[in-house]
Amino acid sequence: MTKHIENIEELSFFALRLAELAGSISMPYFRKPLAVEHKADASPVTIADRSVEAAMRERIEKKYPTHGIFGEEHGKKNLGEKQLWVLDPIDGTKSFITGMPTFGTLIAYLENGAPIIGVIDIPATDERWLGVSGQPTLFNGYECRTSPCRRLADANIYATSPDIFDAAGRDAFERVSRRAAMRRFGGDCYTYGLLASGHVDAVMEMSLEPYDYLALVSVIEGAGGVITDWTGSALHEGSDGRVIAAATPDLHAEIVSLIQ
Amino acid sequence: MTKHIENIEELSFFALRLAELAGSISMPYFRKPLAVEHKADASPVTIADRSVEAAMRERIEKKYPTHGIFGEEHGKKNLGEKQLWVLDPIDGTKSFITGMPTFGTLIAYLENGAPIIGVIDIPATDERWLGVSGQPTLFNGYECRTSPCRRLADANIYATSPDIFDAAGRDAFERVSRRAAMRRFGGDCYTYGLLASGHVDAVMEMSLEPYDYLALVSVIEGAGGVITDWTGSALHEGSDGRVIAAATPDLHAEIVSLIQ
Repeated sequence: MTKHIENIEELSFFALRLAELAGSISMPYFRKPLAVEHKADASPVTIADRSVEAAMRERIEKKYPTHGIFGEEHGKKNLGEKQLWVLDPIDGTKSFITGMPTFGTLIAYLENGAPIIGVIDIPATDERWLGVSGQPTLFNGYECRTSPCRRLADANIYATSPDIFDAAGRDAFERVSRRAAMRRFGGDCYTYGLLASGHVDAVMEMSLEPYDYLALVSVIEGAGGVITDWTGSALHEGSDGRVIAAATPDLHAEIVSLIQ
Repeated sequence: MTKHIENIEELSFFALRLAELAGSISMPYFRKPLAVEHKADASPVTIADRSVEAAMRERIEKKYPTHGIFGEEHGKKNLGEKQLWVLDPIDGTKSFITGMPTFGTLIAYLENGAPIIGVIDIPATDERWLGVSGQPTLFNGYECRTSPCRRLADANIYATSPDIFDAAGRDAFERVSRRAAMRRFGGDCYTYGLLASGHVDAVMEMSLEPYDYLALVSVIEGAGGVITDWTGSALHEGSDGRVIAAATPDLHAEIVSLIQ
């Protein structure tokens, strides 16, 4: 898949620069008084989310004027293009506005709908995961690997909150997580980074948007993990927002089979 | 209350040195492969928890040989003494073993049963709260204050996990948190520090042990907040492990009245 992408290094470098830009804008707002608005879906948003995305879009438009852009706060542009950037300026806005340092910026680059580059950037702790299709995932510049955990009975599993599940989803999460060695809540995109680095074994969530999960794909896969929807199908822009990420194919298969 | 404590500066300085010692021992274990054991109450423990507490106890025994010590991992010593150190070497062991940087070391110093000094130390993010009875709480050396939030409808509220509640406690937490502007899970002792700094408005938990909550008292009170058990009574070594912390007396009173 990577063979035809001639400028993959340039694009990866650009994605990292975008992450730096995002952190430089979000951090001055962190732990400062901020007006919190609530969007149509009741999720909170602040001037920090909007300013970060606007700056990233401007940078993309200058460097790659023909590329498509799909961001959480400012919508879609040039969506028919082969090349697409998908942006979540602040993933974990609830963490951000309560002073929790686990929020992050998510950047995905897709070609013809396939995730090619993913960045999970955590500016408050200065941690960054870079995934590139067909290459090992880097954590702060060093290769990282998922854990060798193959059985749910040995696994720790995370979800951002029990409140992200509907009734059926909650039943499925209970069924899976009660068989795990440990379950924990919290963390937003941070837990997927910890999965790529081998500390978290599984994450199971629902109600995610494309800008929440598309950046995770290259990060998790490049570290040796598996990330799909709840049926085991590959994630794409039209997925239903149900996501399972696991450290190994065996662990992933066990979780998917428990959900069915 | 502070008048008769002649060496309060010396004790406070010593508590901070204990926190530095704890972090210097825990951090080399963080995000490294660790054998996890499960104690009688099913809570996990590692060599990191035990090593940190052993080092802190040794330091206390050398400096203050007559003082009592009560630690999570190595039990009680000289408990009849007027001066007592209460230690949780790693609060948030589940965070610690899953790579989450929100775990902390808790240090409380009591005289005649009353909390006089409290430290919440977060070594992974290099953040530290120091509370001393009758003095303003310090965050990394600077005075901090709780938020001005007076109504639950405007408040964000945290609990470490829904799994810490029994059925009745869960009902009470649902009753309270559903009226809050936002509820979140995760964070262990970190959320109490964020409350002292004005980012989190309320924390409601149960199943806490004395070494989980005694260090929080001086930190929260010195920042302008209120921390009690669920009936509104002061916390002491024999409290039942149900804790409410709130940014203001009004918010605290509203939460207590909803629980009754």
